[in-house]
Amino acid sequence: MSPLDLVQQQAQQALTEAKLADLRAWMAAYQLDGYLIPSADEHLNEYLPEAKQRRTWISDFTGSAGDFLVGTEQSWLFVDSRYYEQADLQVDPAAIHVSKLGLEGHKTLVETLEALGQAAIAVQQPFRLGVDPFTVTVDQCRDLQKRLAPAGVVLVSLPENLVDRVRESAAWADGQTPASYAASRLFAVPEALTGETVAQKLERLRQAMQKAQADILPLTKLDQIAWLLNLRGWDVPYNPVFIAYTIVTAEQAFLFTNLERIDTEIQQSLQPHIALLPYEQYANTLQSLLNQPQPLRVWIDAKHTTMGTYELVQESSKTGKVQIVEAPNPVEGMKARKNAIEIEQMQQANLKASRAKVRAWKWFSDRWAAGDRVTEFDVAEAIARFYQAEPGFQGLSFNTISGAGANSSIVHYGTPNPNVDLQAGQLLLLDSGAQFLSGTTDDTRTFVVGEATREQIARYTEVLKAHINCAMQRFPKGTPGCQLDGIARSAMWQSGLDYGHGTGHGVGAFLNVHEGPNGINKRSQEPLEPGMVTSVEPGYYEPGWGGIRIENLYVIKEVVTENNGAVPKGTWYEFESLTYIPFDKHLIDCDRLSPQQREWLEHYHVQVVEKLAPTLTPDEAEWLKAACQL
Amino acid sequence: MSPLDLVQQQAQQALTEAKLADLRAWMAAYQLDGYLIPSADEHLNEYLPEAKQRRTWISDFTGSAGDFLVGTEQSWLFVDSRYYEQADLQVDPAAIHVSKLGLEGHKTLVETLEALGQAAIAVQQPFRLGVDPFTVTVDQCRDLQKRLAPAGVVLVSLPENLVDRVRESAAWADGQTPASYAASRLFAVPEALTGETVAQKLERLRQAMQKAQADILPLTKLDQIAWLLNLRGWDVPYNPVFIAYTIVTAEQAFLFTNLERIDTEIQQSLQPHIALLPYEQYANTLQSLLNQPQPLRVWIDAKHTTMGTYELVQESSKTGKVQIVEAPNPVEGMKARKNAIEIEQMQQANLKASRAKVRAWKWFSDRWAAGDRVTEFDVAEAIARFYQAEPGFQGLSFNTISGAGANSSIVHYGTPNPNVDLQAGQLLLLDSGAQFLSGTTDDTRTFVVGEATREQIARYTEVLKAHINCAMQRFPKGTPGCQLDGIARSAMWQSGLDYGHGTGHGVGAFLNVHEGPNGINKRSQEPLEPGMVTSVEPGYYEPGWGGIRIENLYVIKEVVTENNGAVPKGTWYEFESLTYIPFDKHLIDCDRLSPQQREWLEHYHVQVVEKLAPTLTPDEAEWLKAACQL
Repeated sequence: MSPLDLVQQQAQQALTEAKLADLRAWMAAYQLDGYLIPSADEHLNEYLPEAKQRRTWISDFTGSAGDFLVGTEQSWLFVDSRYYEQADLQVDPAAIHVSKLGLEGHKTLVETLEALGQAAIAVQQPFRLGVDPFTVTVDQCRDLQKRLAPAGVVLVSLPENLVDRVRESAAWADGQTPASYAASRLFAVPEALTGETVAQKLERLRQAMQKAQADILPLTKLDQIAWLLNLRGWDVPYNPVFIAYTIVTAEQAFLFTNLERIDTEIQQSLQPHIALLPYEQYANTLQSLLNQPQPLRVWIDAKHTTMGTYELVQESSKTGKVQIVEAPNPVEGMKARKNAIEIEQMQQANLKASRAKVRAWKWFSDRWAAGDRVTEFDVAEAIARFYQAEPGFQGLSFNTISGAGANSSIVHYGTPNPNVDLQAGQLLLLDSGAQFLSGTTDDTRTFVVGEATREQIARYTEVLKAHINCAMQRFPKGTPGCQLDGIARSAMWQSGLDYGHGTGHGVGAFLNVHEGPNGINKRSQEPLEPGMVTSVEPGYYEPGWGGIRIENLYVIKEVVTENNGAVPKGTWYEFESLTYIPFDKHLIDCDRLSPQQREWLEHYHVQVVEKLAPTLTPDEAEWLKAACQL
Repeated sequence: MSPLDLVQQQAQQALTEAKLADLRAWMAAYQLDGYLIPSADEHLNEYLPEAKQRRTWISDFTGSAGDFLVGTEQSWLFVDSRYYEQADLQVDPAAIHVSKLGLEGHKTLVETLEALGQAAIAVQQPFRLGVDPFTVTVDQCRDLQKRLAPAGVVLVSLPENLVDRVRESAAWADGQTPASYAASRLFAVPEALTGETVAQKLERLRQAMQKAQADILPLTKLDQIAWLLNLRGWDVPYNPVFIAYTIVTAEQAFLFTNLERIDTEIQQSLQPHIALLPYEQYANTLQSLLNQPQPLRVWIDAKHTTMGTYELVQESSKTGKVQIVEAPNPVEGMKARKNAIEIEQMQQANLKASRAKVRAWKWFSDRWAAGDRVTEFDVAEAIARFYQAEPGFQGLSFNTISGAGANSSIVHYGTPNPNVDLQAGQLLLLDSGAQFLSGTTDDTRTFVVGEATREQIARYTEVLKAHINCAMQRFPKGTPGCQLDGIARSAMWQSGLDYGHGTGHGVGAFLNVHEGPNGINKRSQEPLEPGMVTSVEPGYYEPGWGGIRIENLYVIKEVVTENNGAVPKGTWYEFESLTYIPFDKHLIDCDRLSPQQREWLEHYHVQVVEKLAPTLTPDEAEWLKAACQL
């Protein structure tokens, strides 16, 4: 380490320790034995505005997931296997213990708290764990309470966020309150793209509320609010959403956000449907709505709502006149079932993304063939450039993953390296997506640079078979994602292969690249229904050797007629691809495919040419046709 | 209807109405607007002692499932599709409305109660629903409360069972209190069969309690108690269990049952490990154990414990010194993972059952070939006779299903008919099982009588493929049942076929033929682990046409070495068959099988001959070899 690095490291350590000391002073003021700092913010965002990255600010760990627990003497950061290395590199080992979940002798958050609780019981006093209720869901909170109560740990819900307090105090070089984090200009998505007006969505939503006998529905998730109001913004990276709360009742609706950034045109278009109020007025408006003489029922989704909002309702419910109806948020399911126009838009958006990926593939293949140097970073830049060239491009839908050789085995490799050249015989995994006005995209292809080895071909073909088996599976109404997850893995399991992540996730229509309620994984009990969009992305990862992932997006459609023209008995669904990118034929051993798999693959490549070739230059079209020629 | 039938029917109707009138008098005494009568008893048995068949006694409906709701004027019986017909035939339509779950316009229990609740709200008074807390689980109770509270329905937990009160009152012809229902002689299963002593089981159980920091564990499920104490009895049909409660603490253990039927030898062998008390002392013993100065934690499995037991604990927990730890009952998982000796015993038991089924198959084939008349009932009698001839036979493990022709499409066809002859071209579905001292069995074969049609062969082959695909699937540690359920159905779904029941259920070691926690169905999140026994039983049912089910039992084993002798990467599991009965080759189209499926089938038939032929008469052995020759 250079002297300069050393100085910087020491400075950072001093800063971290000073921050923790200040936090512990606040903890003492609340008589807390511990303080929990999860990654989440008030809206349970996957990507947080810088101002809400509290765990990152105080621990220096920048990973997307990882709870931070601060005790009176020690502190613990809990990370999963994705972040073992990164956590060690980023945090100050003198001040923070990194607990690597899944490793022998590394305790989980609950186990750590149980131990602390036992110690406290021994000295006859409960362990007081402080938490900002707006950073945990109702379910998380209940689970912690249920599991920690026997260990004598008491959860203390605080009226303020202690990290914010520390951060606001002037003592820090970077201590100024962060720049306003809800300042992005809002923009409307026209009905031509959404297929449904705000009025129609509110109408449907109120029908659902009536059916559930709910009078009031608070919306706290940003993609739900953006969908309902046909509005978008860029308050956070990658997700086209804006920081806001919404409350819907049988007669009224309220939007709470930074109003300054909403231009008059949009304000006027919204006013007939929803009252616009400053973000800060959410809590007291909710409570004044509840503070009515007549009995009221409030709809809360315990899985997707913070304990903070729940407590606001609970306080009022003490009167006995307010009842909490717990059920999945109705917007989640409405949003997931895309209408005909949204599906058409998603098809267009994913065609653009498919074209961009084909061009990126051709670009680095040509350069490499020409003997030019190409790095992981160049490839990530190239795909971004080609996305940008497509009309309606708004930004990336997530941080591009471009990993060559051993790096391809790192599932969430988010730092394409300008110093890592593509080498002959390497696998290159390119997982990327874009946000277009028309929709959101996400696809992954794995390529071989130059000649493929027999083992690369064998593994790739196994993953391709898993992808095809899932993609060509038809299934009856009511099939949950977990059944399809098993079907995708079946053939790989027979070969002793598997992958550690789920097979698929829901994708929004010009919204979050990860959305609920549908998913294809071993835990998902949610039935897949027509209009839902899901990724199918089996993989194989061998540290040091490399990784393979093959991902398309699919929309679920009802089977209207059989191939023979007959109407099917019962209600059956199937996948229709949104993504049209060839699979790297140099990695496919067609002899290992069943006739059905081979037929699916050939038909898919025919469609790729049909859909993309007409929009390409003659030179590109030729290249594509060759790439599709098995 | 004959005059006699008419008279009997009228007499039965009069009796039903009188019973309901008496029940409503008791409801009035408790100011109830409704009274709920589920099928379950205090121990959540699948099969109830006659004395606890309250719903059957008061409604005349004998089905295994179906809630009965009695209102002040009307009453409702809620049945699933298995029982649509039976319910109509058995209940008095004048007094009881049959609600057919799943049919248009038929309300569920909750929907019916919601409507009643709304009506009550309209007149400004809550709807009071009475229930015996010992006939519902904690989870059922919470679910009802959560879903009905918004509709203004209040659940009233009663200190007595009102049906019992009606039944005890002398007014009825059959009104005598039913004969003592816990009178069967208890018998011990030797360690040679269980592989673990009571002391060792208690030791393991207490380790689990310590880990969960639980001081007291009440056991209310009879198979858990029978397993823990290596005891069996015949208090209920088919399940070798005895009516009892058990309480385990760190130092003590208590068995509550009818002590008169326990002979001295068993009493003496138990005394070192567990105190024997009369059944009636369960409640007050539990409460006196809780009534201690020091804080206590009680382990409750909300899914498998009645609200009655939960309330006993709750009362004590009001002091604040008693804490309830909610988690799956540890005995359930210990019982499901069979040890080496139990597996060996299960293998022997299922070989006996396999031999009996082969003999029953040969028996009716020969008779039919000889031109003799054979009925469904004859076949059911034959399999019972051959089971009985095997050493260690204790009884059937469930009511034999023997359905010919259209009857084979009735999934739970429990009434083999002495007037239904086997006809040429019919399918015969024979689902049966036995209880041996060494273990419990359950298997199903579908046969064709005479020549099979092309459609029968096509359908049967599809179901066989589903069975084989699941049976030959290897899977990694942590795989839940729902993933394997999807794998079993995959091929059938591609052909537009499916079945309405789960693919598999857990089976006990000389215990219940249906046991938890493992299952292969779309809801099961329970990982399948070594030592667990499960059925694999895909099917196909077409009303009028007929039904097919192919069922084996399998034990889950770890894959120690690959076929090539190598040690597998990671931890992998596979199925090993316990059942060895040929599949009817006249129904198999081998050309539709993949090479792997064909190989599995041929290997299976080779094993059938190897395992069974040496134990058969030469004549039988010849017949078996021919049956196994594809």
